[in-house]
Amino acid sequence: MLDKNRIGNVFSLTSFGESHGPAIGGVIDGMPSGVKIDLEAVQHELDRRRPGQSSVTTSRNESDRVEVLSGLLHGVTLGTPIGFIIRNNDQHSKDYSEIEKVYRPNHADFTYDAKYGIRDHRGGGRASARETASRVVAGAFARQVLAGMGVTLLAYTIRIGDVALNECDDMDMSLIEQNPVRCPNAALAAAMEAHIKAVALEGDTVGGTVRCEITGVPAGWGEPVFGKLSAQLAGAMMSINAAKGVEIGDGFALAQRRGSEVIDHFAANGGRISTIENHSGGIQGGISNGNTIVLNVAFKPVATLMREVATVTSSGEPTVLRTRGRHDACVVPRAVPIVEAMAAIVLLDNALQQNKL
Amino acid sequence: MLDKNRIGNVFSLTSFGESHGPAIGGVIDGMPSGVKIDLEAVQHELDRRRPGQSSVTTSRNESDRVEVLSGLLHGVTLGTPIGFIIRNNDQHSKDYSEIEKVYRPNHADFTYDAKYGIRDHRGGGRASARETASRVVAGAFARQVLAGMGVTLLAYTIRIGDVALNECDDMDMSLIEQNPVRCPNAALAAAMEAHIKAVALEGDTVGGTVRCEITGVPAGWGEPVFGKLSAQLAGAMMSINAAKGVEIGDGFALAQRRGSEVIDHFAANGGRISTIENHSGGIQGGISNGNTIVLNVAFKPVATLMREVATVTSSGEPTVLRTRGRHDACVVPRAVPIVEAMAAIVLLDNALQQNKL
Amino acid sequence: MLDKNRIGNVFSLTSFGESHGPAIGGVIDGMPSGVKIDLEAVQHELDRRRPGQSSVTTSRNESDRVEVLSGLLHGVTLGTPIGFIIRNNDQHSKDYSEIEKVYRPNHADFTYDAKYGIRDHRGGGRASARETASRVVAGAFARQVLAGMGVTLLAYTIRIGDVALNECDDMDMSLIEQNPVRCPNAALAAAMEAHIKAVALEGDTVGGTVRCEITGVPAGWGEPVFGKLSAQLAGAMMSINAAKGVEIGDGFALAQRRGSEVIDHFAANGGRISTIENHSGGIQGGISNGNTIVLNVAFKPVATLMREVATVTSSGEPTVLRTRGRHDACVVPRAVPIVEAMAAIVLLDNALQQNKL
Amino acid sequence: MLDKNRIGNVFSLTSFGESHGPAIGGVIDGMPSGVKIDLEAVQHELDRRRPGQSSVTTSRNESDRVEVLSGLLHGVTLGTPIGFIIRNNDQHSKDYSEIEKVYRPNHADFTYDAKYGIRDHRGGGRASARETASRVVAGAFARQVLAGMGVTLLAYTIRIGDVALNECDDMDMSLIEQNPVRCPNAALAAAMEAHIKAVALEGDTVGGTVRCEITGVPAGWGEPVFGKLSAQLAGAMMSINAAKGVEIGDGFALAQRRGSEVIDHFAANGGRISTIENHSGGIQGGISNGNTIVLNVAFKPVATLMREVATVTSSGEPTVLRTRGRHDACVVPRAVPIVEAMAAIVLLDNALQQNKL
Repeated sequence: MLDKNRIGNVFSLTSFGESHGPAIGGVIDGMPSGVKIDLEAVQHELDRRRPGQSSVTTSRNESDRVEVLSGLLHGVTLGTPIGFIIRNNDQHSKDYSEIEKVYRPNHADFTYDAKYGIRDHRGGGRASARETASRVVAGAFARQVLAGMGVTLLAYTIRIGDVALNECDDMDMSLIEQNPVRCPNAALAAAMEAHIKAVALEGDTVGGTVRCEITGVPAGWGEPVFGKLSAQLAGAMMSINAAKGVEIGDGFALAQRRGSEVIDHFAANGGRISTIENHSGGIQGGISNGNTIVLNVAFKPVATLMREVATVTSSGEPTVLRTRGRHDACVVPRAVPIVEAMAAIVLLDNALQQNKL
Repeated sequence: MLDKNRIGNVFSLTSFGESHGPAIGGVIDGMPSGVKIDLEAVQHELDRRRPGQSSVTTSRNESDRVEVLSGLLHGVTLGTPIGFIIRNNDQHSKDYSEIEKVYRPNHADFTYDAKYGIRDHRGGGRASARETASRVVAGAFARQVLAGMGVTLLAYTIRIGDVALNECDDMDMSLIEQNPVRCPNAALAAAMEAHIKAVALEGDTVGGTVRCEITGVPAGWGEPVFGKLSAQLAGAMMSINAAKGVEIGDGFALAQRRGSEVIDHFAANGGRISTIENHSGGIQGGISNGNTIVLNVAFKPVATLMREVATVTSSGEPTVLRTRGRHDACVVPRAVPIVEAMAAIVLLDNALQQNKL
Repeated sequence: MLDKNRIGNVFSLTSFGESHGPAIGGVIDGMPSGVKIDLEAVQHELDRRRPGQSSVTTSRNESDRVEVLSGLLHGVTLGTPIGFIIRNNDQHSKDYSEIEKVYRPNHADFTYDAKYGIRDHRGGGRASARETASRVVAGAFARQVLAGMGVTLLAYTIRIGDVALNECDDMDMSLIEQNPVRCPNAALAAAMEAHIKAVALEGDTVGGTVRCEITGVPAGWGEPVFGKLSAQLAGAMMSINAAKGVEIGDGFALAQRRGSEVIDHFAANGGRISTIENHSGGIQGGISNGNTIVLNVAFKPVATLMREVATVTSSGEPTVLRTRGRHDACVVPRAVPIVEAMAAIVLLDNALQQNKL
Repeated sequence: MLDKNRIGNVFSLTSFGESHGPAIGGVIDGMPSGVKIDLEAVQHELDRRRPGQSSVTTSRNESDRVEVLSGLLHGVTLGTPIGFIIRNNDQHSKDYSEIEKVYRPNHADFTYDAKYGIRDHRGGGRASARETASRVVAGAFARQVLAGMGVTLLAYTIRIGDVALNECDDMDMSLIEQNPVRCPNAALAAAMEAHIKAVALEGDTVGGTVRCEITGVPAGWGEPVFGKLSAQLAGAMMSINAAKGVEIGDGFALAQRRGSEVIDHFAANGGRISTIENHSGGIQGGISNGNTIVLNVAFKPVATLMREVATVTSSGEPTVLRTRGRHDACVVPRAVPIVEAMAAIVLLDNALQQNKL
């Protein structure tokens, strides 16, 4: 289910909060009972998403402490909903009156006004990427349950603008969290970081791509037809701010290929059947086949430029916008934990829906 | 909502049916009342999806007549659910025992068995693309309502393997239904058709990409956060058989671009605000901005090759599969009406959910 | 979930069809795979609901044969949706023009017009109790799965007008299907039958109450807060045509009692804890406690009287309605299998949602 | 939709929180934008539900201040979700170790353990009626939107044990909030209050019935078949703690009546059609008919007695429970605002789902 502010059927997150209101937060429903939760690990995921964490992210200094309000007893899940909030400590630090009546290009200002006839203009309001912190919390809970099933999730940056990780490049997954762009190749990581800084110096921004690999999913997760695992993952990923493309396995490259080139041959080892190649990205017919689930998510460049941009006011008058302050020049490194979180939410929801008796 | 066999919240389709059972069909719920339905137009959409319609599609000769069982009185919608079926006339014409215990690569045989412990092996069963006929019916109802709102949907082929329509190529939308590949450029259409035939001669298959353009959607459709219009469309498209990638607007290309290169500038004409460029593909912050909604869907090559393929049996024994009979070498031309149908379902569902009082 | 025409979350029925359209039917989604289905038993449930089955029901002679269109292979469930239809053979046998523009009191004519601006006036259209046949089919599938879990459902009539079964009356459950009113006490059954016939002779109708007992449900089914098993059952029962009241366990009588009078004391037998009394009707805190689930459903008298009734036309003109033809004077005996069906749907939906790992 | 901890489709509440955790709260999704909210009125509803408010309620002294965290700008709804919390100030004031391993009869201790294998025993945890405070908050928001549509909700006590308000008794609605039992008849209110106090003196408790009247609902709200307004209301009411019965209009009494006795005759005034009598309680065929919606909810006696009760421990050992402290002897007066809240949630959800174009 992708509802207004809810994702998930049996395991779900309902999210709330504007960037500059008192708090953001959410309710996780369908959490299995009896799971020992490591709240430090939850906070750690939030810290990975947090602004101000590195040389390429905004200096907005939010502590982003999650406060869990329900659903736990002595750190163990009760099976009842996990309510949580994250206070917006930074909410009054800036004057947003300049953009109250201006539509920033490539932002959601105009569309929120068109939909609701009102919007919270302060820092993007509900459309702010700050909202994704709630997703990271829910994902952190989900991944702890998934870990107990042997499922692990790992995302990393494979492209920043023109700098891309290719099939032939070395990857050392232990490097991902060691560099500010979260790329598993040291040289490319350095090139990506340099690229972001160069772009930022020009007051410009840049897009990129995140890959997510999910291992340990047994064959048989996902639903036929509309509830395909691929469809659910695509919807979940595309719901992340700035996401503009999703592909599973070889994805768009498959449109250029012949069938004979992309066969995932089956092999049997002691009765266990698996595929040798993985062009399908671990999902066939919408259902996991036991191989690693692989997906890519494309993010557009950050909309806020540190330069003058011509636009219009909410009454249609031409104006020039000049943004000051703190903004990431590239959202991709911070999107890495968000992609993992969304994948975790979708996978746990599916894990809990197996309908064999 | 993407549930097992249901898509949509307020306007929804619940689908049923195996390829070689008595019938496929579905229930459309949430259809607005008082809409005069052109059933010929519904059948016309089905005919566009039908096998055996052209030189590049399978010769399976199904009449594919939709029978509407409820929800209409004298051709006008009652507001009650539209139940419909499409009989599988062709269901007993072939012997499928050869694949009963063989897992065809890149098909859903193995994954359905893994999930359910049982599968209907005849013609792919529930995993057959035949199921998409139900989507086309629901989409045909939806697009008639949308037409009354001024919304039109148009999909076409932009790539077959290496043959691609580029930005600079001429497009004449009236050509789309005039050639078997549904490409709006005559020369490219001919090249695509030739490509499919050449690939088919080799017993091979090929992938491709479909673009969909939706015009007339006012600014303000879609929901924040998880129910973003882009997320719903991505989920809906990725639920189509063989779909492996979805992008909105400039999509994956945005990952390579700078923010300054992809600004959708606002302009105001007599108080009506719109964007001049359309890199965003008509959706910003998950909500329509009034510009044309543009999305691409990548389809993998058809999994069934007309040549020998090594694989395993369901008990893990190596075997060689040699498929005979009728199979499309490229699914893309027939996917065009399906993409339109899925877009229509999502858009009407959103049109009916505007929550301003 | 109680949606427009859908009930159930993980196991669900989506229903369609008007009384006098080509067919009614539905889609059962979430059916567990690998279950051997006895289609004769499904048809048997339909026959229990069928008009014309006894001396106290309408003589409308519908064969009411269910045709299952999907989801089964050699009689075993595939895990895919069960699509089914029941043709309306009797659909053209009567002239309904007399009521096309008249609002029958206590019927849904006026409210459907108010909601939709259009209605199918033939035999009640979508508001006809004929729609409940689809529920009976889905319930028949559900109860076969439940039977495999040791859960059995048994409903019977406890009141027809003034004739009521009391706590002290003998009950022999084997008698239920032996008399036309489905009462487990022979003398009361005879009195109820006589009462219905006497009422019918006067052109009048009468209400009644159905009790449903569900045994074998283990402790622990149901969800906290909004998804309480009692709440789901209440919603499901109240969705049956003519239902006007639902109570669980001692129900409304509890409003008159003191706490000390209605304690369900716990007892432990070899570690298995259960309640001795059952004032709670097998549900405490919205979750089953392992005791028999007991609920009552009150049905209003049939709205169609065989005498002249003053009413208005759809344009508000006074008129007199005189119904001819075949109508039950009491719906309660035929409601018995419907109550069982709704209970089965709710219980299986909950059985499949246990979220302990 | 009645999901685990969510109610509502288009307008919904997702609730969280245990009685003695840090806080309870919820997320209201689907709130229409542009509605000026009176937060004092929201708090006023909470105060009506609050313990310690009168001579017949527990002396637990919780301030129960709602803190709204999102969805409002300058007191006007944004259309985004309303997140809110209510801190549990009183959470550490008592030693609950005595009941940690004891199953209190007629409570949810045993069933929660059976379902989840764990429970928060402090004050009932998630099963505590404290959870209903979140419902009252959501209801208070809903009723402000409904008020703008001319819809008003009024609930009151019609029975406490043997003391009942009958058809012939005078009612003065202005008295409801003037007496601690919320009965619109002064003499009966006094009798009810005396009855509760007498029962309490014996360490006993007593049940009762609440009626709710909803005026101003136009004809045409509600959905056919499963989404009947009566079904949704029944589910919502039965989800309230201690509710054991629900009836619409004449309800269970209709089971004893003849059709000719309970005709709601139509009358037309200047083209506006309405019913003269209201045995149906404002709902026919599951859809509102414009008359006052009337429903009754039966509540069982409070489970906690102030006397010794024989029971078992969680390991099945016999024990005797003697509860000390503060407990209502009758929950009915405080259920009045909860019943109104649930009705408001259901009605607004339906108001926003009208599907005529």
